[in-house]
Amino acid sequence: MLALTILGNNSAIPAWDRNPTAHILQCIDECYLIDCGEGTQIQMAKYKIRRSKLNHIFISHLHGDHYFGLIGLLTSMSLLNRTQGLHLHAPAALEQIITLQLSVADVRLSYQLYFHAITSESIIVKDSKIIVESFRVRHRIECWGFLFTENKNPRKIDSQRAKAYEIPTSFYEKLQKGEDYITKKGTIIPNEEVTTEAVKAKRYAYCADTIYDENLVEKIKSVDLLYHETTYLKALHLRAAERFHSTTIQAGAIAKKGEVKKLLIGHFSSKYEILDEFLAEAKEVFENTELAIQGTSFRI
Amino acid sequence: MLALTILGNNSAIPAWDRNPTAHILQCIDECYLIDCGEGTQIQMAKYKIRRSKLNHIFISHLHGDHYFGLIGLLTSMSLLNRTQGLHLHAPAALEQIITLQLSVADVRLSYQLYFHAITSESIIVKDSKIIVESFRVRHRIECWGFLFTENKNPRKIDSQRAKAYEIPTSFYEKLQKGEDYITKKGTIIPNEEVTTEAVKAKRYAYCADTIYDENLVEKIKSVDLLYHETTYLKALHLRAAERFHSTTIQAGAIAKKGEVKKLLIGHFSSKYEILDEFLAEAKEVFENTELAIQGTSFRI
Repeated sequence: MLALTILGNNSAIPAWDRNPTAHILQCIDECYLIDCGEGTQIQMAKYKIRRSKLNHIFISHLHGDHYFGLIGLLTSMSLLNRTQGLHLHAPAALEQIITLQLSVADVRLSYQLYFHAITSESIIVKDSKIIVESFRVRHRIECWGFLFTENKNPRKIDSQRAKAYEIPTSFYEKLQKGEDYITKKGTIIPNEEVTTEAVKAKRYAYCADTIYDENLVEKIKSVDLLYHETTYLKALHLRAAERFHSTTIQAGAIAKKGEVKKLLIGHFSSKYEILDEFLAEAKEVFENTELAIQGTSFRI
Repeated sequence: MLALTILGNNSAIPAWDRNPTAHILQCIDECYLIDCGEGTQIQMAKYKIRRSKLNHIFISHLHGDHYFGLIGLLTSMSLLNRTQGLHLHAPAALEQIITLQLSVADVRLSYQLYFHAITSESIIVKDSKIIVESFRVRHRIECWGFLFTENKNPRKIDSQRAKAYEIPTSFYEKLQKGEDYITKKGTIIPNEEVTTEAVKAKRYAYCADTIYDENLVEKIKSVDLLYHETTYLKALHLRAAERFHSTTIQAGAIAKKGEVKKLLIGHFSSKYEILDEFLAEAKEVFENTELAIQGTSFRI
C-alpha cells in the first residue's frame, strides 16, 4: 500500500494559507518527499512526518515554488545530527546551488548527501520497497515527472497447506518469491499449491508542472493515482498554455485518456481563493477527481 | 517615530510555531526588512506588512535561518509585477547565490534589484527618513549588525512668532533646517526665536547573531531599543560561547553597559518550548527587557 500526504498545493506565490508544492509518499515504513517548496519543513512538523523516515527526495524542476524549502530542510536535519545518508534526485544545477549555500555558511552536513542528477527517462530508484522512474514533462524549463511503483509484493503463503506438505519454514522466503518446493523424494510442490498471488503493486504518477501534453498519457497509463496540476480554471486556458501550465479540464482529459483510477489536482493559482470550481470542472471530464487539500492523505 | 514588528524569533530550526529571524522596522511610510528566514513572506502576509512599502532589505549573515526566505520573497514580488527598485544590503556572497537561483529558473525580475555588498563599518543608507549604519558582530562567520537612526526631524516652527517677525512662508523650509532669517533691513532673526527643537531622533540597534562581546557596547550606546540575541539560558553559557551565541544575562549585561532604554531578546533555541525563563533571567541584569514575540510590535 502507498499513501500520499499533501503538504502544499499552491502555485508560485503562497496565499490563502496554501503553501507551495510538496508531497509525501509513504511506502511501508519509508517516506519519499516529492518537491519541497518554501516552508516544507514546517509543514512536515505540522503533519507529523518524521524526518528520519526520509531517505529520498525528488525535485521536479528548479522553479522556486518547488525547491526553495529544500536547503532549510537539509540544514535542519544536519543541525539535528542526522547520520543516515540522504539521496537527492534533481536537475543537475541544484547541486551547485546547495554546495554554494553550504559553503558560504561554512556548514558541513552531519550526514552524507548523495546527489543524483536526473538526465534521462529512466529508473532512478529501485529497492525492495519501491521503483521510481523519471519521465519528461513539458514546462518552461527542464522538468521531470515521477512514477512510483510498489516493488512486487511477496506472494502470500497459505500456512495450513504449506504445513500439510511439510515444507520447512526456512523455505518460506523462497515460496514468497514464487519458487516451487521439491521434497526429499523429488516430488515437486508447485508454488501455486501453497501460495496465493500478491496484492497488485500500486502506482502513483506525479506530473509536476506541465502544459497540456498528450504525450503524458502513455507514461501515466492506468496508474492508481495521478497527480496532474491545474493552475487555472478552464476559462484561462490561453494563459495556461502561455505559461506552460494546465487547466482543470486538461488534467481531466489526461486522466481520462490515461484510464487512471483516480485524479488528484493541485498547484492552484493564488488568484483563486475558493477551490470548489476546480473540482467541479475537472469532474465534468473525469468523475473520480479530488482536490489536493493540504494535510489530507490519500490511500493508494 | 520608529516601530518594530517581529516576524520570526527562533534560532536555526523552526519549532514551537516559531519562525526563523525576521524583523520589520517601520519609519513613517516605509518598511525596512532585517533578515529574512524561511517563511518570511508568509509572515509578512499574516501580519499585513505591505511589500510595496519595502525598499531596503538588510541581511546580517549567510546562515540559512537569516536568509533562506529571501529568494522566495524576491521572486514573489516579481511574479506580482513589482516595478519599483529594491535595495539589498548583505555580505557579498549572497549576490552569487541569488544570481544562480534566478538563472536556473530562467527568471528575470520585473524590477531592478540593487545589490550592495557590506564590506566595512559605514553608513549604508542615508535618505530623508533614516540613516542606517553597519557594524561588525562576532559570529562564526562574517556577520553585521545594523544601527537605524531616524534622520533628524525638521525643527518646529512657531508660526505665530514667525508671522510677527513677518518671515515669508517661502523661507519656512530653511527655518526648519535651522537657518536664521535676515530681514530686508539686515536684522538677523535668530532661528531659536521662531522655532523649537525637533523631537529627538530615535535609534534602533540590531545585533544579529553574536557571541558575548563588550565591543558592542560603544556601538549600541544609549539606543532607544537594542535587539540582542539570547539563543540560550544562562546555564548553557559554555555552549553559547562555543557556538558564537549569547545567553540571557550576557544580553542583559550589554544592554546595561550600553545604557540603552529598552532591550529586546530573541533567536531562542528550539530546545526551549516555554520562554518565560528567558525574560526572568535577562531582567535579573536589565529590568526593561521584553521578549521578541512573533506578531508583536514595539514603538520606539
